[in-house]
Amino acid sequence: MKAIILFSGGLDSTTVAAIAKNKGYDLFALSFDYGQRHQVELEFAKKLSQSLGFNEHKIAKIDLRIFGGSALTDDIAVPTSPSKNIPITYVPARNTVFLSYALAYAEVVGAFDIFVGVNAVDYSGYPDCRPDFIAAFENLANLATAAGIEGRGSFKIHAPLMKMGKAEIIREGIRLGIDYSKTHSCYNPFSNSENIYSCGKCDSCRLRLAGFAEAGIEDKILYS
Amino acid sequence: MKAIILFSGGLDSTTVAAIAKNKGYDLFALSFDYGQRHQVELEFAKKLSQSLGFNEHKIAKIDLRIFGGSALTDDIAVPTSPSKNIPITYVPARNTVFLSYALAYAEVVGAFDIFVGVNAVDYSGYPDCRPDFIAAFENLANLATAAGIEGRGSFKIHAPLMKMGKAEIIREGIRLGIDYSKTHSCYNPFSNSENIYSCGKCDSCRLRLAGFAEAGIEDKILYS
Repeated sequence: MKAIILFSGGLDSTTVAAIAKNKGYDLFALSFDYGQRHQVELEFAKKLSQSLGFNEHKIAKIDLRIFGGSALTDDIAVPTSPSKNIPITYVPARNTVFLSYALAYAEVVGAFDIFVGVNAVDYSGYPDCRPDFIAAFENLANLATAAGIEGRGSFKIHAPLMKMGKAEIIREGIRLGIDYSKTHSCYNPFSNSENIYSCGKCDSCRLRLAGFAEAGIEDKILYS
Repeated sequence: MKAIILFSGGLDSTTVAAIAKNKGYDLFALSFDYGQRHQVELEFAKKLSQSLGFNEHKIAKIDLRIFGGSALTDDIAVPTSPSKNIPITYVPARNTVFLSYALAYAEVVGAFDIFVGVNAVDYSGYPDCRPDFIAAFENLANLATAAGIEGRGSFKIHAPLMKMGKAEIIREGIRLGIDYSKTHSCYNPFSNSENIYSCGKCDSCRLRLAGFAEAGIEDKILYS
């Protein structure tokens, strides 16, 4: 059974890949080069795509920078303390755009299952990481596509991490054999000729570190 | 009042621009370079963007070709006779991707209105040109965005051509002052150093020619 997976090479989407694989899906992975400051995540994604046994891995180059508006794509500083409202690292309509591409990919390869690592627990400030958003996209997918209206199948958006805390995600991933030292989470990494260092301070690093601490497991990536 | 308009430089979206302008909207236009065979439409879009008085005109380069699957982007012949089913010129999830970008653009400029030239009469074979699809996207937009959940406004997808026939669209456009000789519709155009010729045979040309004929108006673009 074919499935599309939105795959960043981060902790969450790597765990989703292991979960989907464990359920028996043949995975067609999709990453995005969207002008993110943390371009290094694409290098992690490429390396991981081999060890995770994807049937195919595509990297779509997309141009969200033309609109501006996020610390992840613009010259706006990545915050190093938590925000109460919607974070400045929110990229406008990002998951809508990502899922739209996943839907196009699904139609072309004949898949009806799309896996995505969104999580409502840690990312409650992101509107496009909530169950209502996923349900609305699933509804749209079935109306938007030839496959949907011809009744060849029904699209399902799988968000297995939706209600899991970070520690729980890490434990599940380790149970499924993931080596998290090969994953990347930092929004603001630093690299020299030999190593890549995560900042340890951005939202994404903080959530990761707290998750490992709570799980009682050592995070073996390098921090600056 | 700001609005985003999906703008191809074709007959339909040019008419939508005139309708939105006539309603008093300040228009932020969005075109796509998506590897379409008919790249010439982007040249038409750029020229028209001046005469139509857009506040801004962005061209997003997107990469739908990485998935393949349509005569509009691949080396698949554009058909010259009507098809009964979903046409091969259907690009998987195209309008979903286009509207997702429009939504990102809307969030950044602070617009809540998005205009799109989809039409259920002539394009009934395209799943993503139907009222149900537009309604599903509007629902998604309000769940997907910071603006939507913070209650700063409610997104509205306007599809003013949805139930209009081609002749009706042309008559309305002419009433609003459009010079259709500056628009382009052909999926399979031919150009030499001096002129661009429409094929007159593809779905899009046939609909255009039939519309002008029914409206009793001469179509002044060049046909090969």
